[in-house]
Amino acid sequence: MRAPVLRLALRPSTRIIPRANTITRQATYASSSSSKSVAQFLDWKPAETVNNVVVNGFVRSVRGLKSYRFVSLGDGSSLAPLQAVVETDQAEGLAVGAAVRLTGSWVSSPGAGQSHELHVKKVDILGPSDAKTFPIQKKYQTPEYLRTMPHLRPRTPLNSVLLRLRSEAIASLTHFFANRSFVQTHPPIITSSDCEGAGEVFTVTPANNSAAEPGKDGPDDFFRSRKYLTVSTQLHLEALAQSVGNVWTLSPVFRAEQSDTSRHLSEFYMLEAEMSFVDGLGPVMDLAEDMLRHLSTDLFKSATVGDLLNRSPHSGSDLLPADEVARRWEGMSEHDWPRITYAEAVKLLQQNADKFEHKPSWGAGLQSEHEKYIAQVVGEGRKPVFVTNYPRDIKAFYMLPTQTPGPDSQGSSEATVDCFDLLVPDLCEIAGGSMREHRLEPLLEVMKRQGIIKSSLDPASENGSGSGLDWYLDLRRWGCPPHGGFGVGFDRLLSYLSGVQTVRDIVSFPRWYGRCDC
Amino acid sequence: MRAPVLRLALRPSTRIIPRANTITRQATYASSSSSKSVAQFLDWKPAETVNNVVVNGFVRSVRGLKSYRFVSLGDGSSLAPLQAVVETDQAEGLAVGAAVRLTGSWVSSPGAGQSHELHVKKVDILGPSDAKTFPIQKKYQTPEYLRTMPHLRPRTPLNSVLLRLRSEAIASLTHFFANRSFVQTHPPIITSSDCEGAGEVFTVTPANNSAAEPGKDGPDDFFRSRKYLTVSTQLHLEALAQSVGNVWTLSPVFRAEQSDTSRHLSEFYMLEAEMSFVDGLGPVMDLAEDMLRHLSTDLFKSATVGDLLNRSPHSGSDLLPADEVARRWEGMSEHDWPRITYAEAVKLLQQNADKFEHKPSWGAGLQSEHEKYIAQVVGEGRKPVFVTNYPRDIKAFYMLPTQTPGPDSQGSSEATVDCFDLLVPDLCEIAGGSMREHRLEPLLEVMKRQGIIKSSLDPASENGSGSGLDWYLDLRRWGCPPHGGFGVGFDRLLSYLSGVQTVRDIVSFPRWYGRCDC
Repeated sequence: MRAPVLRLALRPSTRIIPRANTITRQATYASSSSSKSVAQFLDWKPAETVNNVVVNGFVRSVRGLKSYRFVSLGDGSSLAPLQAVVETDQAEGLAVGAAVRLTGSWVSSPGAGQSHELHVKKVDILGPSDAKTFPIQKKYQTPEYLRTMPHLRPRTPLNSVLLRLRSEAIASLTHFFANRSFVQTHPPIITSSDCEGAGEVFTVTPANNSAAEPGKDGPDDFFRSRKYLTVSTQLHLEALAQSVGNVWTLSPVFRAEQSDTSRHLSEFYMLEAEMSFVDGLGPVMDLAEDMLRHLSTDLFKSATVGDLLNRSPHSGSDLLPADEVARRWEGMSEHDWPRITYAEAVKLLQQNADKFEHKPSWGAGLQSEHEKYIAQVVGEGRKPVFVTNYPRDIKAFYMLPTQTPGPDSQGSSEATVDCFDLLVPDLCEIAGGSMREHRLEPLLEVMKRQGIIKSSLDPASENGSGSGLDWYLDLRRWGCPPHGGFGVGFDRLLSYLSGVQTVRDIVSFPRWYGRCDC
Repeated sequence: MRAPVLRLALRPSTRIIPRANTITRQATYASSSSSKSVAQFLDWKPAETVNNVVVNGFVRSVRGLKSYRFVSLGDGSSLAPLQAVVETDQAEGLAVGAAVRLTGSWVSSPGAGQSHELHVKKVDILGPSDAKTFPIQKKYQTPEYLRTMPHLRPRTPLNSVLLRLRSEAIASLTHFFANRSFVQTHPPIITSSDCEGAGEVFTVTPANNSAAEPGKDGPDDFFRSRKYLTVSTQLHLEALAQSVGNVWTLSPVFRAEQSDTSRHLSEFYMLEAEMSFVDGLGPVMDLAEDMLRHLSTDLFKSATVGDLLNRSPHSGSDLLPADEVARRWEGMSEHDWPRITYAEAVKLLQQNADKFEHKPSWGAGLQSEHEKYIAQVVGEGRKPVFVTNYPRDIKAFYMLPTQTPGPDSQGSSEATVDCFDLLVPDLCEIAGGSMREHRLEPLLEVMKRQGIIKSSLDPASENGSGSGLDWYLDLRRWGCPPHGGFGVGFDRLLSYLSGVQTVRDIVSFPRWYGRCDC
């Protein structure tokens, strides 16, 4: 087959993007076929033409002359497509969206961009497509439009990069924790306690009670009482940490919040870790920092992040410019992230009070504008910043009171707890953690004070019955060492690292108030 | 400190178990402390006494003389405890269950069993315990009793081994798939379709509708229609496989079955994988076999499986004898697992019909006694056995009809599908998979035949509307290549490999009909 003469002028106008090249991809699994992935083809630059090569993929675009078609083929392994040249009489069925197998020769390409191209001898249409009705088009489509079809959206090149990013992040984190003897656990999804959600939880009931005698079983009878989808695995992780010391999980959690923001989903993944026998918040922050730095430095070298950072700019507001995304990776790869107390943060904010709509004051939560300022000034717009020792009254009941108040603590009437929020530029809180109250009596007291246990007059209150948390108190009755941990919103983290502006576009099948497609 | 003279006679009678020693454990994370884990201490055999060492853990037993106490300390890192000698006047608070930090000298031990022991200089009681009320005792406690307190049960030595087994299995599988460029995904937990469960699903509703206007929002209004907990991630995995080719997940799935058996839970983890562009069932079975063999050979060398196989025999019926467990690991590590068709299996069973309560016949599902016979005879009681090409009418709607009937197919009226069940001794089905119907028209037909789509008179039936599966049909409209995959009940697999006789005891917080504690 001869290369067509006018080819260059007719090539798709997409800029061919240089790919990061430090990670060699493995062979695809399909043992029945000797095919390589598109990414492997793009990395393959033999000096001589190689005949009888096979590639599987989806047609992204078809253009051409009278006698030749130029086909862009993608298979999700790389943002850049493979360019194939097909004689027109072979091109029947090569429609946008079709799943095809192309057999041919891998030939050095005289054109700019891609070093080689596939000269196709044989076309197998494995899954036909009607290009006219195929909803995914090569031109820019808004995230709102793509969100209406989550079952097809993964086929866009960007979404395949995001799927690979998630996968590589999971593998990297699994390796990080395994190397440190942290035990990966599967805490329960259906739970008895509605402890943090203040009603913003989902209940779980069997769809069909007809198997039971009519009138006998109510919706809450399958498990004998009302059960919920977990909002956080922390309490159960604490139990498991009393078995094997240091534990972690990457689990789905659920919130029935009726909020419609770019940061909230009804179903999302939380990475949570819990450490036993720790002497204070320091090692817990060390772990969070080490983990995120490991993840960043590990993935920064990957072809997937290369795809994210070398992508062509586009006009949508859904994706941060690539250079700003690169700055996030660099900041998270740096050492010695700043750590300041809440009191120091408030002082800093008060010194710059004219910059804010909300007046900063001790005892109130930090507003988004405050957190952004701290990330910008203390973290120099790059490094994540730990803010520690928040006031007790705005934090969860299980947090350990600060034992040794620092120079900035403002007296015992303004008690703080050993906790941290980790702030990053733009997105603000990306992780939160604390030491846990490991002593029975102080925990009982705070649970009574916050009304989690009804009152000291209630005899059941002595063991926490009625709160659904008697088992959590039990952990403190026998051998509860000092312990602490943290949680990271995994989808939010991936949004931050990819520059995708809303968590709805980082999750394949996002669920939020009013939306649960497929 | 001098070693007490009568010590040997008073040591706990537990057999000291030799530990598999091929995997060196990493340092524990706690950067604030230089402590080693108990497992690391037991592996540490310095020629000279080492002073000022620190170990954290939980007191498993205390025995002693007037002036000395002998403390067994466990921290979940090893089945065998660390032996420590404490002077009686230091021993206050050293009660069974207490969380302690011991500082002292690591000294060569003259006794049998453990090569060294800790001579304690300083005892820190980090979490006290009342040994009299502590529900976990050193003596044998029945699994039924332990199941009543899932929050404390992880503290038993066996349960800490099981937690480590799960963790190491996850890490090994993550590594296996990452090496083969399979993309790990997070398919949704809350789904729209109740496709396989035939009503045995859980519905999800917000606990608190009070935020909405009274009378406006019903329980199904949060997501605008009724939503369910997923029973299998397969359908969504198929959508993701059309993006990045080969995908997998380890996700929680849910069944509202009112069954009370050792094999069923309402919430459990499924490992599911889906491959695109595969030419037939062969590569799908290859993947399942390679994966399980990789897992077995990888973990067989670990200290954790060493703990499982070297444990002392005990009298309960809850745990298989260690030599039978070893045979399971060996069988799964072997190559070339037998593959027979359903038709061949039925023929074999019919030839031995007198051995069975249920008469084997073509078209009926295989009974448990049949599967056990096949695993015993075809798999020689060791190797897992693939049984393929079951009758179409007893399998799921999405399975691809067998394209090239083998010599044993019994004519077109007894059509089969390209599927497999993987059978192991005792437990029977441990995995199941199939090729999927990737063509739109045949899939529509079978969905109508099975009543999943109401009728061809219904105009909505043309695109599957009303079934909740229109999106699944959409996958076939544009570029659906031949694809297939499988699912493995992860908890059941861990039961099989650990010899734990019921999945209720392999899961930390098991949920089944009538039970959902903590």
